[in-house]
Amino acid sequence: MEVYFDNAATTRCSDGAREIMMEVLSEHYGNPSSLHLKGMEGENYIKEARARICRTLKINESELIFTSGGTESNNLAIIGAAMANERGGKHLITTKVEHPAVAAPMKYLEEQGFSVTWLDVDSEGVFSLKQLEEAITPETILVSLMYVNNEIGAEEPIEEAAKIVKERNSGALLHVDAIQAYGKYIIHPKRIGIDMMSASSHKIHGPKGAGFLYVREKTKLKPVIYGGGQQKGMRSGTENVPGIAGMGQAAAEAYENFSEKQEHMYRLKDAFLKGLEGEPWAHVNGKTGRDSAPHIVSLSVDDVRSEVLLHALEERGIYVSAGSACASNKPAPSSTLQAIHVKKQYLESTIRISFCPENTLEEVDYCLCALKELVPRFQKYTRH
Amino acid sequence: MEVYFDNAATTRCSDGAREIMMEVLSEHYGNPSSLHLKGMEGENYIKEARARICRTLKINESELIFTSGGTESNNLAIIGAAMANERGGKHLITTKVEHPAVAAPMKYLEEQGFSVTWLDVDSEGVFSLKQLEEAITPETILVSLMYVNNEIGAEEPIEEAAKIVKERNSGALLHVDAIQAYGKYIIHPKRIGIDMMSASSHKIHGPKGAGFLYVREKTKLKPVIYGGGQQKGMRSGTENVPGIAGMGQAAAEAYENFSEKQEHMYRLKDAFLKGLEGEPWAHVNGKTGRDSAPHIVSLSVDDVRSEVLLHALEERGIYVSAGSACASNKPAPSSTLQAIHVKKQYLESTIRISFCPENTLEEVDYCLCALKELVPRFQKYTRH
Repeated sequence: MEVYFDNAATTRCSDGAREIMMEVLSEHYGNPSSLHLKGMEGENYIKEARARICRTLKINESELIFTSGGTESNNLAIIGAAMANERGGKHLITTKVEHPAVAAPMKYLEEQGFSVTWLDVDSEGVFSLKQLEEAITPETILVSLMYVNNEIGAEEPIEEAAKIVKERNSGALLHVDAIQAYGKYIIHPKRIGIDMMSASSHKIHGPKGAGFLYVREKTKLKPVIYGGGQQKGMRSGTENVPGIAGMGQAAAEAYENFSEKQEHMYRLKDAFLKGLEGEPWAHVNGKTGRDSAPHIVSLSVDDVRSEVLLHALEERGIYVSAGSACASNKPAPSSTLQAIHVKKQYLESTIRISFCPENTLEEVDYCLCALKELVPRFQKYTRH
Repeated sequence: MEVYFDNAATTRCSDGAREIMMEVLSEHYGNPSSLHLKGMEGENYIKEARARICRTLKINESELIFTSGGTESNNLAIIGAAMANERGGKHLITTKVEHPAVAAPMKYLEEQGFSVTWLDVDSEGVFSLKQLEEAITPETILVSLMYVNNEIGAEEPIEEAAKIVKERNSGALLHVDAIQAYGKYIIHPKRIGIDMMSASSHKIHGPKGAGFLYVREKTKLKPVIYGGGQQKGMRSGTENVPGIAGMGQAAAEAYENFSEKQEHMYRLKDAFLKGLEGEPWAHVNGKTGRDSAPHIVSLSVDDVRSEVLLHALEERGIYVSAGSACASNKPAPSSTLQAIHVKKQYLESTIRISFCPENTLEEVDYCLCALKELVPRFQKYTRH
């Protein structure tokens, strides 16, 4: 049995997304900037993807920029907004639990003379609205907050945060990293008061190599990539037509029968958590109910290193993550786990299980059985 | 009959490239940063693509950075090298005929306080080695030159330029935009003395959304995109595994039976040019022999606007370009045609025909017939 429970790292490309990509790659391969029919065919795929994604977000079609992925989206939002608005001040705010794709651009801006306030989070990974309110000054030009934490699935109070940002400093921009949230929540960024929002295709069963940034009209932004002036100069370079078409298809699919899919993932999560109840070695991080992300469980395990457990599960065909895959090139203790003050012993003994709507209760059971057999066995070795 | 003669704008994805992408999208979809088998499968596709591309260039595998395309490669090389080396000086050199993906980052750096020398070209689009030599100062940190001009197919004297750059200022870096040359020429950048070289997947029958930058070991470069630290921190973001795998396949295919393919394109070009001989309305720009690119012809036509001709050809199933497609979003007179001082009337009466190894002599004949019939007919209207 193969059980892929690493959907927060990446997902399988859906059949529909793959099919539309094939069409583009084999037949409708024109350069969208070309003036002839072949070019228009390419352009039409982009228009269609744009329309589909904008419908899911209730935004205008002029408010969407296609990028090469979530990391680029975050860079464009953060570096682009900071550089375009620095006359208004040089103060930025973010949290201590952001993904490196937000944290690293912030650190780069610190080197460029910006000052960054890094908000704390509570033991469940949620930042304090009060601390946010106190941090905002007239010099604040940008606040960047994640919608869902990628490691422990914490849901952040974005709607309330948006109100506070606009009340305290109407000129400050709010960027939301929604890479783990888009497709898992219904998000209407314009209504909430979000100015920019990042998402990634490969987290929602689209292909790798595509992402988008919602940018509310009239938001001042500088590009990070310069060239032929595609996408109104905000993101030059021949568009990744197959990738964009695949992402558009995946986005539409993610929001088809959305409530059922979301509920299904919550049921998987509930079953998984219920199955762990009473196991003395199992410690779940963060919230676990409908106030947490439907697809992510962070599990700390007594006396078993996460890599050991990961590979033992792998031998049974179960794929999970040790911390955050997106940054696992750099083996360093997770900043999220540190920020929520997990016991030191758990920093290297935590795995992430992450679901998608295709996963089944049977798979959850299979994984639970494996854990219940493997963990006590490894503990025996460790304790010797 | 459908005749695609716009291969310098983009190419059809090869069957082999499409097939390997399908494998990745449907089965081997892991995140290369994941520690489990699914992650390793993804990583293996990247390793294989890296090995294949490095073989074509005779470079080390540590010297290749994957990007989202040629534009990003040029930005990373130019902005990244300027920012990393500005202590050595703030002078840059490029030519007046570069693609916007080079010219625009250069203009951005001018705004940031760098000074840029823009080299002239002769009437055939070739820059002067003497002018290059005179332009290099002890403050010069970067020279960026194109290998083949995208609009008229001029072949630039890169090898001689590399020698001059290193003789005049051994600390200055040489970047080459080889986006129209990779796959059409055998290029060994390390041997020639090139420090960085950009290429794009979709110009060589690979998918859109992928490209690479060769960076010679020990070259100082700053990233333009920050995040999870993928690719040794030089290009963060989950790798576009299907795109990279497709590009690796396309690169290998481009250099299989390379001489035959190159010779075939030259034969198409010869036949096309021969067919135009004696036509009073036809004026070919730049060199036309083996000292020009095998795949590009720039044709100025008396008294017919390029867009009119483009659409008339399109009606016959023939796809060509009016100027450079990659920048045709911005309808402005071509800087290349201006730099080679074509007669003013030709600035808006020039089309680009560009071949690939799949094109045939029959297609060339079909296009010649169409031109010979259409141009005199349009001229009659214009002259009324």
